[in-house]
Amino acid sequence: MVIIGGVAAGPKVAARLRRLSIEAEITIIEKGKLVSYGSCGLPFYVGNSVPEIEDLLKTTAGLIRDPQFFKDQKGVNILTETEAIAIDRRHKNVRLRDLTTGEERELDYDYLVLATGATEVVPSLPGIEAKNVYTLHHPEDAVKIRSLIREKKVKHATVIGAGLIGIETADAILSRQTKVALCESQASVLPKLLDPDIAILLESRMRARGVDLHLGSPVKALEKDDDDNVNRVVLENGEVETELVVIAVGVRPEVSLARQAGLTIGVTGAIQVNQHLQTDDPYIFAGGDCAEQIQHVTGGKAYVPLASTANKQGRVIADNIAGRKTEFPPICGTSVLQAFDLNIGRTGLGELEAKQLGYDVMTSLSTGLDATHYYPVHDSVTIKLVAEASTGHLLGAQVCGQGECIKRLDILATILHFRGKVSDISSLDLGYAPPFATAIDVLIHAANTFENKQLGLVKTITPSELLEQVRQGKHFHLVDVRENEEVKATPFTGPKVQEIPLGELRNRYQEIPKAGVVISVCQLGIRSYEAACFLKEKDYKDVRFLEGGMSTWEALRYQLLEYIVE
Amino acid sequence: MVIIGGVAAGPKVAARLRRLSIEAEITIIEKGKLVSYGSCGLPFYVGNSVPEIEDLLKTTAGLIRDPQFFKDQKGVNILTETEAIAIDRRHKNVRLRDLTTGEERELDYDYLVLATGATEVVPSLPGIEAKNVYTLHHPEDAVKIRSLIREKKVKHATVIGAGLIGIETADAILSRQTKVALCESQASVLPKLLDPDIAILLESRMRARGVDLHLGSPVKALEKDDDDNVNRVVLENGEVETELVVIAVGVRPEVSLARQAGLTIGVTGAIQVNQHLQTDDPYIFAGGDCAEQIQHVTGGKAYVPLASTANKQGRVIADNIAGRKTEFPPICGTSVLQAFDLNIGRTGLGELEAKQLGYDVMTSLSTGLDATHYYPVHDSVTIKLVAEASTGHLLGAQVCGQGECIKRLDILATILHFRGKVSDISSLDLGYAPPFATAIDVLIHAANTFENKQLGLVKTITPSELLEQVRQGKHFHLVDVRENEEVKATPFTGPKVQEIPLGELRNRYQEIPKAGVVISVCQLGIRSYEAACFLKEKDYKDVRFLEGGMSTWEALRYQLLEYIVE
Ligand SMILES: Cc1cc2nc3c(=O)[nH]c(=O)nc-3n(C[C@H](O)[C@H](O)[C@H](O)COP(=O)(O)OP(=O)(O)OC[C@H]3O[C@@H](n4cnc5c(N)ncnc54)[C@H](O)[C@@H]3O)c2cc1C
Ligand SMILES: Cc1cc2nc3c(=O)[nH]c(=O)nc-3n(C[C@H](O)[C@H](O)[C@H](O)COP(=O)(O)OP(=O)(O)OC[C@H]3O[C@@H](n4cnc5c(N)ncnc54)[C@H](O)[C@@H]3O)c2cc1C
Ligand SMILES: CC(C)(COP(=O)(O)OP(=O)(O)OC[C@H]1O[C@@H](n2cnc3c(N)ncnc32)[C@H](O)[C@@H]1OP(=O)(O)O)[C@@H](O)C(=O)NCCC(=O)NCCS
Ligand SMILES: CC(C)(COP(=O)(O)OP(=O)(O)OC[C@H]1O[C@@H](n2cnc3c(N)ncnc32)[C@H](O)[C@@H]1OP(=O)(O)O)[C@@H](O)C(=O)NCCC(=O)NCCS
Ligand SMILES: [Ca+2]
Ligand SMILES: [Ca+2]
Repeated sequence: MVIIGGVAAGPKVAARLRRLSIEAEITIIEKGKLVSYGSCGLPFYVGNSVPEIEDLLKTTAGLIRDPQFFKDQKGVNILTETEAIAIDRRHKNVRLRDLTTGEERELDYDYLVLATGATEVVPSLPGIEAKNVYTLHHPEDAVKIRSLIREKKVKHATVIGAGLIGIETADAILSRQTKVALCESQASVLPKLLDPDIAILLESRMRARGVDLHLGSPVKALEKDDDDNVNRVVLENGEVETELVVIAVGVRPEVSLARQAGLTIGVTGAIQVNQHLQTDDPYIFAGGDCAEQIQHVTGGKAYVPLASTANKQGRVIADNIAGRKTEFPPICGTSVLQAFDLNIGRTGLGELEAKQLGYDVMTSLSTGLDATHYYPVHDSVTIKLVAEASTGHLLGAQVCGQGECIKRLDILATILHFRGKVSDISSLDLGYAPPFATAIDVLIHAANTFENKQLGLVKTITPSELLEQVRQGKHFHLVDVRENEEVKATPFTGPKVQEIPLGELRNRYQEIPKAGVVISVCQLGIRSYEAACFLKEKDYKDVRFLEGGMSTWEALRYQLLEYIVE
Repeated sequence: MVIIGGVAAGPKVAARLRRLSIEAEITIIEKGKLVSYGSCGLPFYVGNSVPEIEDLLKTTAGLIRDPQFFKDQKGVNILTETEAIAIDRRHKNVRLRDLTTGEERELDYDYLVLATGATEVVPSLPGIEAKNVYTLHHPEDAVKIRSLIREKKVKHATVIGAGLIGIETADAILSRQTKVALCESQASVLPKLLDPDIAILLESRMRARGVDLHLGSPVKALEKDDDDNVNRVVLENGEVETELVVIAVGVRPEVSLARQAGLTIGVTGAIQVNQHLQTDDPYIFAGGDCAEQIQHVTGGKAYVPLASTANKQGRVIADNIAGRKTEFPPICGTSVLQAFDLNIGRTGLGELEAKQLGYDVMTSLSTGLDATHYYPVHDSVTIKLVAEASTGHLLGAQVCGQGECIKRLDILATILHFRGKVSDISSLDLGYAPPFATAIDVLIHAANTFENKQLGLVKTITPSELLEQVRQGKHFHLVDVRENEEVKATPFTGPKVQEIPLGELRNRYQEIPKAGVVISVCQLGIRSYEAACFLKEKDYKDVRFLEGGMSTWEALRYQLLEYIVE
């Protein structure tokens, strides 16, 4: 048994296989110095919430997972600083090179596991090879970045790429001492995770924290000083002064060895495997960041490189090698992160993705609380549901908020697993006590909100649709149904609005002009929904409530700037 | 439209119905002074984390939900201090009595909704009518209890009944000033929620906090002083000095009006309804704590009175009255609470319940972390899975721990909704990032642990089974595979044990006697599982690991006392 790659998938194959068979001789080949480290913790080390880099190597019992650990605890051999440079499938051996001595040798295998992972993409920009340009992929990178920030007292850092790692890194670096600029060529942050209408929640929070956000503006060059350090990032629109650059524009599956061995590389660019994670050579398995997956919702190929998947796949590979015909199931692509005190995630398809795939899509966006508001700790949760309009089948979901969002996302991933509908969400019997939820959980409210829209009980407008109407100079009449104190504290920004608290609407609704489009607004969307229900029955022909309410509208402040009369 | 009962189910019917129809005339009859209050928040008010009782009546916008609020905001009439005393089904009217004037009158209905809720059970004990004996069911009760504790500086309080409300109340009352004794006739706490082998986690924590726990010892009498105050609670075994008694032995559905009207009362003692929540009179609906439900797993009748159910049922009743033929789905009976810093809950069937129902049951108990251990905030989660041994279908689950247990329980409730198997849990694509989970979520580990046992990879013993073996003086050989420092910090209590850290086991295993039963132990169960896998292959015929490990075994300290050689 030879395993190439010693971070997550590789060691998990070894650990599980050892439990299934104490006889197997198991060797892990790793070209780096470290094995079995928690790469997902690197941003937390950079941001100082993980004190030492060794913490990412320790077990819960405090032991460092080094080759000696694997020898003693697991009976597994690890060769570090050793690169696998070729596979001879006919003779079933791997050619190894000792990177310290340069010596080469061959190692026979019965089964070979490719757990070669992914490599960070480094764009070919002028200046990219400068001294103060890093990626954050390996513990060594993290140590260098953190010590540079500390020692040089970096005042301005730039992160290029607003994906999961870029956002986590920006949060980690940002501090009272160090300002951060974040540059992203796409028009919104986390473009692979979030649709723009929910991404604005993160964007506005980042701006409020002082992040200098450059969206929709590709980086053209990195300008260097005489010391070979980048001091300016040149964008298509604008430029940023900087003392440190972190590149986080994505990863690419490491498939060179597989390709050399003549194994099929799939459409995603990762190694093609069957449901047992076998490559087209039955003696060679592949798992983790180097292999492709099946997307559960579409049935198509996917490439979502995550540690959760890498570990689960490692387990499945071990099972199959030990003779248990286990299958690795399709993925929902559930991806989550915590950054800028927001809990963010996505499962299944996004709205834009689903539309591109030709689905007949309906969505809803709603905000609520993760616990009762009288309970001392409670925070907001925004949920976007994406479903098939005709059938109500859930296609995907996105969440964002300071509250317990990931709990709701995990339930949604479970709904996807069973190919459930939005109506299944409403039927769930979720746990309720004041610290954990509202009597009707925010997730069930989200499903009910979706169904109220789907069944035509009310019409809605999303914040981005409203912004578009404002931009196009369309006519509509806005009614803010919040209490006077709430309006005073956070006035409705942008277009003109009529203020009628919900409690007065039943007596005063005739003040609202009957013709044209009427849009009701409140804090979360609940009272404006109620107002819309009322007005609709009073023969207002086109009433809509603003989905997400002020909580989302406020997030558009930046886009709104030109329309705001302060 | 007449609705009887103004707390949760009743107001929810009214609120939803108003949105579906602005014409309907809606009247709520409530015999108390308050309506629409958060009864679930009462323990938090008693425990001072909710400052004012009015907080339980406020909307998120800060408005008090009184009759004026319902008039203005919802267009709903509420008659408080008005009791419905009889229903005339033939003439479709309700007889009302104004409790302030004693006047009676009739009110016609097209549809009638019974949302009469539940009443607290007050056992007929000698002394029960004393001044300082309370229940905690109504805001007035909470105000009285809290002010008594404050004003009289109560030093010793007694709670009778260790159900959900009893446990929450004990936590609320316990403080540096006030000690609490908790008396429960059953042998373990939360007998309707938790099986004894997981209830011990809560029990040991309560004891550690200084709660005087009297289990398996029914209360026989309350002894009073000359002032008509109870000063001593007499139990079957022992007695407790006290200055305040809170009775929390359960609730009973309030069905007197329904019975008087000749409606069918079901086997559970609550009003029988169909899936549209109609009683056997199609013009009379019933929902909330006065009505019975269907248990999803068994298909049988159930009575689990919860605010979550009451609110959802209110919505379904409104839909049906408005002509939408909505169904209220069967419940999983998901019940949760937070007390003594533990998050506790249950969904579906417990082990004992499932066995009584004749299921062929297999369980597993496992502990893990809710987030990566290098992330600064992480806590433990113990999960007990109850499934059908032959098919692997999930029947129920219980959770307990300081960590994010309820998230995992809600996912399990979702699995139950779809009649999923333990193998479905392993297949879930749950969100992983260091603040939210371990790379393989603790819930997926729990499922894998179950399957490892089910497929015969290892044998296990539960803490209570081990205790039973100790009690019976059975022979077995215990091997503690933790690191020396861990053993020093928390030595294995009770029977004799051989210490061999896992890292030395591969070289030292021959020190373990080959004959008889060998039981391996570690902190959580992971390393002892690994040790058991190893020993099994080394021809140890009957090796088992201790499910739940030290984390659960330690909780048996009280039961263990007589066996501990300190
Ligand atoms: C900053 C950061 C944050 C992240 N956060 C999350 C998160 O929150 N959640 C999540 O699920 N995932 C996260 N990830 C992704 C996660 O770390 C990866 O999915 C996981 O590490 C993949 O494991 P792997 O074993 O498949 O591959 P890798 O971790 O890439 O390891 C592959 C190893 O193989 C070695 N190797 C490659 N080729 C050879 C060869 N020819 N010879 C010898 N050795 C070779 C490499 O040196 C490498 O060490 C994050 C990643 C980073 C960088
Ligand atoms: C301390 C405590 C903690 C709780 N914690 C939780 C929790 O964490 N999670 C959870 O889900 N549930 C919890 N519950 C349960 C929850 O409060 C109830 O399930 C919920 O209140 C039920 O609502 P209901 O409207 O059906 O009935 P009730 O709340 O019982 O209201 C019924 C109302 O009807 C009135 N009424 C009855 N008969 C008549 C009549 N003939 N004429 C006029 N009025 C009448 C009564 O006066 C009463 O006000 C808790 C309950 C308590 C007491
Ligand atoms: C740690 C590593 C070597 C895997 O080793 P492992 O021993 O399989 O550890 P895991 O925590 O994954 O699995 C624990 C095992 O104990 C079982 N288990 C978990 N909790 C248990 C409990 N309370 N009682 C009994 N068994 C339990 C699990 O089912 C699993 O066994 P199985 O796979 O045979 O079913 C590998 O995951 C690794 O190198 N990880 C670090 C790198 C990494 O993942 N990086 C990216 C994320 S930051
Ligand atoms: C408050 C009460 C009167 C119900 O009133 P309600 O207006 O239906 O309030 P809810 O919060 O239940 O429902 C909010 C409504 O807005 C919808 N909604 C929720 N979030 C939304 C959002 N962000 N955007 C749009 N609509 C939203 C919901 O779907 C629901 O409408 P629907 O039922 O028509 O689908 C009733 O639940 C009550 O009296 N509660 C207090 C008592 C109680 O529950 N006690 C026990 C628990 S402590
Ligand atoms: Ca920071
Ligand atoms: Ca307390």
